[in-house]
Amino acid sequence: MSGIIERYRPLLPDVTDATPVITLAEGSTPLIEAPRLARWIGVPPQLRVFLKFEGMNPTGSFKDRGMTMAVSKAVETGAKVVMCASTGNTSAAASAYAARAGIASVVLLPRGEVALGKLSQALIHGAQVLAIDGNFDDALNLVRDICATHPIALVNSVNPVRIEGQKTAAFEIVDALGDAPHFHAIPVGNAGNITAYWRGYQEYHAAGRATRTPKMLGFQAFGAAPLVDGSRVHEPCTIATAIRIGNPASWKGAIAARDQSGGLIHKVTDEQIVAAYAAVAANEGIFAEPACAAPVAGLKMLAENGYFKDLPTDEPATVTVTLTGHGLKDPDRAIKTVASGIVEVAAQRDAILRQLDRFF
Amino acid sequence: MSGIIERYRPLLPDVTDATPVITLAEGSTPLIEAPRLARWIGVPPQLRVFLKFEGMNPTGSFKDRGMTMAVSKAVETGAKVVMCASTGNTSAAASAYAARAGIASVVLLPRGEVALGKLSQALIHGAQVLAIDGNFDDALNLVRDICATHPIALVNSVNPVRIEGQKTAAFEIVDALGDAPHFHAIPVGNAGNITAYWRGYQEYHAAGRATRTPKMLGFQAFGAAPLVDGSRVHEPCTIATAIRIGNPASWKGAIAARDQSGGLIHKVTDEQIVAAYAAVAANEGIFAEPACAAPVAGLKMLAENGYFKDLPTDEPATVTVTLTGHGLKDPDRAIKTVASGIVEVAAQRDAILRQLDRFF
Repeated sequence: MSGIIERYRPLLPDVTDATPVITLAEGSTPLIEAPRLARWIGVPPQLRVFLKFEGMNPTGSFKDRGMTMAVSKAVETGAKVVMCASTGNTSAAASAYAARAGIASVVLLPRGEVALGKLSQALIHGAQVLAIDGNFDDALNLVRDICATHPIALVNSVNPVRIEGQKTAAFEIVDALGDAPHFHAIPVGNAGNITAYWRGYQEYHAAGRATRTPKMLGFQAFGAAPLVDGSRVHEPCTIATAIRIGNPASWKGAIAARDQSGGLIHKVTDEQIVAAYAAVAANEGIFAEPACAAPVAGLKMLAENGYFKDLPTDEPATVTVTLTGHGLKDPDRAIKTVASGIVEVAAQRDAILRQLDRFF
Repeated sequence: MSGIIERYRPLLPDVTDATPVITLAEGSTPLIEAPRLARWIGVPPQLRVFLKFEGMNPTGSFKDRGMTMAVSKAVETGAKVVMCASTGNTSAAASAYAARAGIASVVLLPRGEVALGKLSQALIHGAQVLAIDGNFDDALNLVRDICATHPIALVNSVNPVRIEGQKTAAFEIVDALGDAPHFHAIPVGNAGNITAYWRGYQEYHAAGRATRTPKMLGFQAFGAAPLVDGSRVHEPCTIATAIRIGNPASWKGAIAARDQSGGLIHKVTDEQIVAAYAAVAANEGIFAEPACAAPVAGLKMLAENGYFKDLPTDEPATVTVTLTGHGLKDPDRAIKTVASGIVEVAAQRDAILRQLDRFF
């Protein structure tokens, strides 16, 4: 089964005949209409809501699209080792694709911020995991320094082929809908993904595959909103770890996507994020990681503020939402979110039926 | 994006025009060739190994194929509640598809065997989770009793449409390969899945879509091997929780699959399972739950015992392996398996380079 490189090769100029394709059949993730969630959000009825569920990639996040590119190019150049600074989805993808290629991987992370659950993937895929007594910026600087002077390929998102791979998600959305959506809502952390989607939509439009480009609607968390606040955040803070970033690498790309598309980048609170996270799972049966809930919460806020009120009522419109990763990446968050939890009962028919009263 | 019901509707006679299709775009999982793992297993070079990675279903396991059927039929009959006994993948799928349908779900599980991580999905999808002071058999008996006398749809695998849905994985394999494989290796716990694959292969063969049916190679864990040992196991024991079952519901189906296909059902130790689990992740970049490693370990044992030695050396042959669920279902197991773990180093270029000595 083919991954994004085989499927979109003509639109990925970094890929040449000399590039060995290292793939785990990433991409081809479903675009799922979400009518019950749309009512929860409160969009007008002519606006259809679709979820692009990137949690159905092989390592459980959208990072696989960029990593098939980065590791394929690394192998092409003869690299025997790839390296990244990460505590989350990037390390999982880097180590998985390196394993698939039969090369080594090294993950550098700040000591004290080691979430063992999130690192289970890097460990089982055989990455060498090093914890340093410094912060994430220190880790990234060290990775850049070492990769510049040693035969190790850098696969952090400062590697430009990562964004090239990620733009294919926009291609898939247009392919599925038959045209670009009117709006695209997306979480914004390091800002590589909003940059990538905007590039993908622009390229498909230029190639005549879509009649329009969507307004890009980016959402950051309140405690980690440098693009909204206009300045770097030194101690970013949010429960949505995947967007807990104070100094986005793709800052300019995100601003360009916002302004060129006629869109916006706003911020939502952790309370709004948690409510949206539970609403996606309870209304549509889709379990996405907390960061994915930022654009859902953001759309609800926009709807409440009248953002969609001028849409023509007689013309169908679409908004697509990127759900960046699978909820299984952070099971503890789900358990913390559901206050009701588990009820203990006797192993007796009547005792159980009393708990089910509300259903009869 | 369509799920298995739309894609295989003519081969699913339980589905009628009156059936509302409740789907999360399950199925269409990749079939990934595994050349490096094939060398680790030790199969002869003319035997190609392919992995059917069912962890890429929406809730992270093959259960979604059966659950789209069970919940669609439940909604067709007017059910407002579905119910199952489960501590793992079944409860995740049942609660997700119930949420998608806008109906309620109830999960019954034995108290004291509550793995919170595994239940995070049921909880976030809004299931009512009841823990009883009894074992799994008690839970299933209570579920059957209550569903028989109340308007609640039973979605355990004793519901026959579950196996109908699961047979579509065999269809997808034949569609991908252009014919049936020569061998199909699969973990055997409750034995519904080996029953379902065998049915799928037989039906596709009868329909002229394949020139052969594969030999079915089933593998149980040493401490939970009733089909190998020939009698029910009262206290099944293995680290592979998904196949920790002492009295398989589809006992007869598994024996029929084995005998009609000319295959076998053998058992492997937990040590063999853990070694295979790590080998899949380290050699191919695929993170599958421990139970999935039973057939990989089993193939290695068969290869060592000369099972494949009479295959003609000049004729290509294929073996497919079902990886039933995603490794993210059980991240703790990965962390326990990787002894090396995380190395702490100073945030200094030279200190880090000393850890990377082996790469230069």
